[in-house]
Amino acid sequence: MKLSYIGERGLIRQLTSFLEIGDDAACIKDKDGFLVLTTDMIYEKTHVLPGMSYRDIGRFIVNVNASDVAAMGGKPLAFLLSCGLPDIEIKDFEELARAVDLECKRLGMQYAGGDTKQTDELTLAGFCIGRVKKPVLRSGAKAGDVVAVTGTLGSASIGTEVLLKKRDTKGFRSVIEKAMRPEARVKEGMILEKYATSMTDLSDGLAVGLHNISAASGAGLKISLEKIPIDPKGREFAETYRMDVTEKALYGGGDYELLFTVPRKDYSKAAALVGATEIGVVSGKSVSLITEGKESFLENRGFEHFRQKR
Amino acid sequence: MKLSYIGERGLIRQLTSFLEIGDDAACIKDKDGFLVLTTDMIYEKTHVLPGMSYRDIGRFIVNVNASDVAAMGGKPLAFLLSCGLPDIEIKDFEELARAVDLECKRLGMQYAGGDTKQTDELTLAGFCIGRVKKPVLRSGAKAGDVVAVTGTLGSASIGTEVLLKKRDTKGFRSVIEKAMRPEARVKEGMILEKYATSMTDLSDGLAVGLHNISAASGAGLKISLEKIPIDPKGREFAETYRMDVTEKALYGGGDYELLFTVPRKDYSKAAALVGATEIGVVSGKSVSLITEGKESFLENRGFEHFRQKR
Repeated sequence: MKLSYIGERGLIRQLTSFLEIGDDAACIKDKDGFLVLTTDMIYEKTHVLPGMSYRDIGRFIVNVNASDVAAMGGKPLAFLLSCGLPDIEIKDFEELARAVDLECKRLGMQYAGGDTKQTDELTLAGFCIGRVKKPVLRSGAKAGDVVAVTGTLGSASIGTEVLLKKRDTKGFRSVIEKAMRPEARVKEGMILEKYATSMTDLSDGLAVGLHNISAASGAGLKISLEKIPIDPKGREFAETYRMDVTEKALYGGGDYELLFTVPRKDYSKAAALVGATEIGVVSGKSVSLITEGKESFLENRGFEHFRQKR
Repeated sequence: MKLSYIGERGLIRQLTSFLEIGDDAACIKDKDGFLVLTTDMIYEKTHVLPGMSYRDIGRFIVNVNASDVAAMGGKPLAFLLSCGLPDIEIKDFEELARAVDLECKRLGMQYAGGDTKQTDELTLAGFCIGRVKKPVLRSGAKAGDVVAVTGTLGSASIGTEVLLKKRDTKGFRSVIEKAMRPEARVKEGMILEKYATSMTDLSDGLAVGLHNISAASGAGLKISLEKIPIDPKGREFAETYRMDVTEKALYGGGDYELLFTVPRKDYSKAAALVGATEIGVVSGKSVSLITEGKESFLENRGFEHFRQKR
């Protein structure tokens, strides 16, 4: 039986079946709280969008890793990078390395070096370490908590589809930026560490994030479709190219926003501090979506590798 | 100008030009001493030897990473793995993941999860984090210190060449094992933390290791060829296939042994504790080799990627 049969998330479960906690990042307790550790890999063929520069690629690998630390409420400390590289121009590699260094600085962490090996396709593996007093796990959602997200959803996957189909992107710079230059919600994650009862990032899409929190917490999440924040430019872009914006907001990956639950009494303060939107409530046993007053089960699907060939 | 022009070590210099210290691993100071961080990548086409099982590959990626932490005198705490995978059999992936977990346990650290992405060729990036009171850098060698190595040298590259040429390996299991299943000198590194003035691992060969310590310390190293410990089985194997055993011991990579300098007064005790051999002394300004009483400059070369095409 081949890997394509179980898909990427099944594979990560396999890879992490030895671990005590399956969360956005691993946590190791020490005297000062917890070290937060994560790794995320990108492969040119499947993760680099048409039009992305080496600078964009450098920024991307830093942010997708920092996002996992942010999702635990952690403060990133250091980043390392293993680069599998074809024989590219030295100046391109310099651009990538410089972007990595600058992006680490922007996120308040140290770029702590790496490894390079010759490969046929660009393959980057980032590693981020952070620190947190008390990690925000996926497992803490309690009945009655508010379910909320930072930023807006859907733009990244709308932008990605347009870029992959090589359509005209004029006038939609902000949407394209969201796809090409995701920014880890590090500041927001560190603030939410004090308020959130559970948290995850939305790299694999909202539906997957909701199901992960639901499964880990043993609690249901009830979401209202109309409350999901969608960037008006993203909506306009989707409509221009006849894309289903709801499908993108629910199942599209690449939005490195934070999904979290927070006690009702703390919600206003937390939301104001991080710019969040309430999308639902912790209630019942499963993940459901309310559309025009009607409640239905929300499917657990999103973007994943290894499944494409099936 | 392409990457092949500057070679792998030039590239790592580029990638790490933003860092304060260039050493086997990065060090970050905190309240309890230092965190030690490293990443090392392997690519199936160039790093996986004929006959290596997925179990061997899993062990390999753990040990090459742990070796960098050992070279700083650190105790490994945790390991993460990013896997770029073609659509292999699930049981092969399970074998790899299980080997990673077991090897982490053997080395006294936690396997803390990872990422998987679909790629055309197997590409593994490991990340190891460790802790040390006071890291042993490459830069502390002092005139008069003894230069020493753990274990024996040359076997890994002798074994590698035989495997690549698909020659008969019967009767030389120990040499083949050294190539396929290198073992990080973690216990030895932790002991040497108390004694060594400088240290590095020998992943890129003895000559490169000596030059790295010499350059970082601003001190010369004088080595006696006849003192270099070579496994008799390795020598016999090399002679069987007409390989230059001296060439392999000096310039061959893959021996994950430790090269270190230690004050003369501490040498006997340290050597007894870790099973080390004295190969020379810190003296003069450059790296030289004494062969049958004659001293000559030792070239700074070893195995590296990106250079093969030139």
